[in-house]
Amino acid sequence: MSEKIAFLGLGNLGTPIAESLINAGYELTVWNRTASKADPLVKLGATVVEDPMDAIIPGGIVFSVLADDAAVEEIFSMELVEKLGKGGIHVSMSTISPETSRQLSQIHDWYGASYVAAPIFARPEAVKAGVGNICVSGKAEAREIVKPIVQTFVKGVYDFGDDPGAANVVKLAGNFMIAASLEMMGEAFTMAEKNGISRQSIYEMLTQTLFAAPIFQNYGKIVAQHAYEPVAFRLALGLKDIKLTLQTASDVNVPMPMADLIKNRFVSALAKGRDNLDWGALAMGASDDAGL
Amino acid sequence: MSEKIAFLGLGNLGTPIAESLINAGYELTVWNRTASKADPLVKLGATVVEDPMDAIIPGGIVFSVLADDAAVEEIFSMELVEKLGKGGIHVSMSTISPETSRQLSQIHDWYGASYVAAPIFARPEAVKAGVGNICVSGKAEAREIVKPIVQTFVKGVYDFGDDPGAANVVKLAGNFMIAASLEMMGEAFTMAEKNGISRQSIYEMLTQTLFAAPIFQNYGKIVAQHAYEPVAFRLALGLKDIKLTLQTASDVNVPMPMADLIKNRFVSALAKGRDNLDWGALAMGASDDAGL
Repeated sequence: MSEKIAFLGLGNLGTPIAESLINAGYELTVWNRTASKADPLVKLGATVVEDPMDAIIPGGIVFSVLADDAAVEEIFSMELVEKLGKGGIHVSMSTISPETSRQLSQIHDWYGASYVAAPIFARPEAVKAGVGNICVSGKAEAREIVKPIVQTFVKGVYDFGDDPGAANVVKLAGNFMIAASLEMMGEAFTMAEKNGISRQSIYEMLTQTLFAAPIFQNYGKIVAQHAYEPVAFRLALGLKDIKLTLQTASDVNVPMPMADLIKNRFVSALAKGRDNLDWGALAMGASDDAGL
Repeated sequence: MSEKIAFLGLGNLGTPIAESLINAGYELTVWNRTASKADPLVKLGATVVEDPMDAIIPGGIVFSVLADDAAVEEIFSMELVEKLGKGGIHVSMSTISPETSRQLSQIHDWYGASYVAAPIFARPEAVKAGVGNICVSGKAEAREIVKPIVQTFVKGVYDFGDDPGAANVVKLAGNFMIAASLEMMGEAFTMAEKNGISRQSIYEMLTQTLFAAPIFQNYGKIVAQHAYEPVAFRLALGLKDIKLTLQTASDVNVPMPMADLIKNRFVSALAKGRDNLDWGALAMGASDDAGL
């Protein structure tokens, strides 16, 4: 394996991941739709290209961190996967549907390349701090090559086996649980607030005790203080994820009433023009409903 | 203040709390509707009485750990509170409605006694291990007397000020969040299971990372393994708590759609004859719905 990596997609998450790979000693060729986003990475030594095709090294490794299913399917055209070809590995970090991962994996197989789903749980600052967590799934041999590479920039790597869709299922389940935690805190803190208890004091009690986990401590602070800026993850992307969750569940006949409720909260947040706020703003729905 | 304490209510939680107080050096006079439950405490040196009235020390301290609002209101009759009288303190640990606490507090005031709400977050084994947490609220002077006593058997004591109902609001909010976490995991694990991922593996990943908190680790194990026995907290008590939550929220005009969903899950679990299982069995609803 070469120390060279092609890296496609330099959004809020892609950029710090690419930077971490450079810091770990990898030689990166990067591409992004808006090329100027590559500037800070070029300063660190990355090569930038104007066409994703030019980043691909036959038989090499390509990371992708893209917005959604459509972007991954568009960029990973037959032509591009053919160039990646025999021995090539695609580390697909985007939060996409398990079904899309399974289909892309078949296309990669066709050309002798391997597809490894590797979605990450991390906000941008967590990537920078090296405390993110990654789920991987896909062909065993390729997974074993990918694991030590991603281990360089996360805290934990969790292996979900051969099904290329499995890691995406876990990622969707986790994102659903984060969004449900936002709603849960929104409702609980609002009930407390209207009983004369400060949102901050109930937040502190619960997240120092029963709910002493990163999700509740970090998002709870945002919800307690209604501090929905800066935007680390957009509401629109949250809606995309919960729709994928419901679709994935529905495909295997699993009703998810709590996820339905969350989806409607996202839809309402966007209807109220909150697309400029972090997805923590999902929790504002409970305050709105209570006339606050 | 005397080292003597009256202790009313020896259920799943009351018994280990009473035992902890004895171990901390307090002299206990205990009462329980079913008197035989006091036997293990009598062996440790407690005195047992047949009438709660006989346990009360005028101007002393009485702890109560009772099943519900009706039990607290029945036992803390005007007559009993009158005997408790001037300087007396009632440490009310039951999970009851904030409104009942506020009304009881007024009756105590009338007779010169103080009412301190002190609900505890702990399953019986957590009480034994001394890792529970208590919220207190009520008259300041009485709170300061109560805090060092309860501190002898819990990890943390959280003060929510003068409103005797405040600690109950926080307790209800916390119990709602626990029940919502059960449903959340039920839905997420079921979606994973029907995608060929073991419930245990998604449980381990999520509770070692984003959801690394006691609630998710302890209840998550129960939900992942469908291990709803032995019963630490009955489903019927969970339903009682979520009804109190919804009533408390409704009293101050706070809609809680997620709590509504949870309430229906409790009702359904009881309809299915699961009253002999731990309230973790709330999570079975998601599996049932998915035909598992």
